[in-house]
Amino acid sequence: MTVPLDPAAARSVVRVRVRFGETDLMGVVHHSSYLAFMEVARIEWLRRRGITYAAMAEHGVHLPVVELSLKYKAPARFDEEIDVEITLVEVGAVSVRFDYRIVRAVDGTVCTEGMTRLACVDSRGLHRISEEMAAVIRRAEGR
Amino acid sequence: MTVPLDPAAARSVVRVRVRFGETDLMGVVHHSSYLAFMEVARIEWLRRRGITYAAMAEHGVHLPVVELSLKYKAPARFDEEIDVEITLVEVGAVSVRFDYRIVRAVDGTVCTEGMTRLACVDSRGLHRISEEMAAVIRRAEGR
Amino acid sequence: MTVPLDPAAARSVVRVRVRFGETDLMGVVHHSSYLAFMEVARIEWLRRRGITYAAMAEHGVHLPVVELSLKYKAPARFDEEIDVEITLVEVGAVSVRFDYRIVRAVDGTVCTEGMTRLACVDSRGLHRISEEMAAVIRRAEGR
Amino acid sequence: MTVPLDPAAARSVVRVRVRFGETDLMGVVHHSSYLAFMEVARIEWLRRRGITYAAMAEHGVHLPVVELSLKYKAPARFDEEIDVEITLVEVGAVSVRFDYRIVRAVDGTVCTEGMTRLACVDSRGLHRISEEMAAVIRRAEGR
Repeated sequence: MTVPLDPAAARSVVRVRVRFGETDLMGVVHHSSYLAFMEVARIEWLRRRGITYAAMAEHGVHLPVVELSLKYKAPARFDEEIDVEITLVEVGAVSVRFDYRIVRAVDGTVCTEGMTRLACVDSRGLHRISEEMAAVIRRAEGR
Repeated sequence: MTVPLDPAAARSVVRVRVRFGETDLMGVVHHSSYLAFMEVARIEWLRRRGITYAAMAEHGVHLPVVELSLKYKAPARFDEEIDVEITLVEVGAVSVRFDYRIVRAVDGTVCTEGMTRLACVDSRGLHRISEEMAAVIRRAEGR
Repeated sequence: MTVPLDPAAARSVVRVRVRFGETDLMGVVHHSSYLAFMEVARIEWLRRRGITYAAMAEHGVHLPVVELSLKYKAPARFDEEIDVEITLVEVGAVSVRFDYRIVRAVDGTVCTEGMTRLACVDSRGLHRISEEMAAVIRRAEGR
Repeated sequence: MTVPLDPAAARSVVRVRVRFGETDLMGVVHHSSYLAFMEVARIEWLRRRGITYAAMAEHGVHLPVVELSLKYKAPARFDEEIDVEITLVEVGAVSVRFDYRIVRAVDGTVCTEGMTRLACVDSRGLHRISEEMAAVIRRAEGR
């Protein structure tokens, strides 16, 4: 079952700057680098709601990516500032889905749009998302 | 317009071995590393049909990823041999689509399934795939 | 010939946060990830002195790493904030050298110490560092 | 104490092919990618002497890089085949040192020369290299 979410609360914007090593010989950001930007944004999205992924991981709970799709619209370039607009769009029993829009900060050009579904797992397998956790991730960011 | 393809000719299997640096603190292959495996497989798929991507790139023609989707089924681990089964499934006017199944060589467990769409571009923008090129990529691999 | 440098002016501290994908199955930051942190710090070191590496690169001038050494003292972990202390220690005719100390922000533990020598090159080969450029990089950071 | 080594037995050559994502906007292999090549070569060096690093790691024994130095002589490019010449040059009580020469397979041009020192560790700290292990790594490669 998916739970209705408050779109405003569910959204954060996380800024990253493109590193030199994230480019390739086409002179633009390599397509795999966007996965790193999205991952940074997810961790930060959780932090702003009071959840430290590192602490979760120490307790053996992880959120691996189980599904991923991306459309590349325009290239991002070295040293550009990039805004990852990340929105929680679904909270299931054992998974969550985030949608992303990655834009150039300077002019708002959309570089990439996509989604990831993350399973909640522990050492034994799928890990039910608790009511408490679900309540927390429905909160707006605290800063 | 999409062109019918010979499924047997359109498929190659490319083996890679998981590197240490491709894992993460969950102890398994990081989800972004599969993009590298798929990229290696595409380059090799072309090579086996007589096309050297590096030579194309020197002439300013590239095949950037414009769409990507992946489902993660089972983890791959450090040092495992992985078979990337890659199949050309569509040849359009200015893009091609490959499908992938990434399996553990030792037991055939499916780790990941996915697709990428690649645009054909040159320095001015989209680059029409020539009849000649289309004929070449419809060939079976030569080794 | 090496030029004396003002140690205080020559030093900047650049903070980064460890990404999930920068760890490996040992559960700590992979040794190659420190090179990314050092690269981020160099670009930022230049920016704080008014030099945009991306603009230099567009003019065909680059600063590739030609020598690198690192000692690993203590592991850094996922999600930790890391301070890269970077100091310009030498300005030669066609190369510069930076030294680094990478410490955990929370307690100052030294994770890594090292150096990189960078050549100044353009499309024809080594590129003499101009008096103007040398003057700029001897400045203290502007923010 | 360092133990004399048979130079011929101590050396292996491991071939890798440069991936697209290992290049950067200078159009050549990014300096950090060589660390991946050297890591691949170390794992393979051990395998050819009967040691599976993955099995060691499952028993909690690791060989993290504790010291690293590299000189970059010439660029390697996308899709080139690269030979990593790796030689064990020192076996200490709790560490080993490998030296590397990375050359372009096609013409033997030296791209990079360097060394890594690896500590032997387990979950409690430094792990003494057993006589048995030391004997194994003094062997020549088996294939």
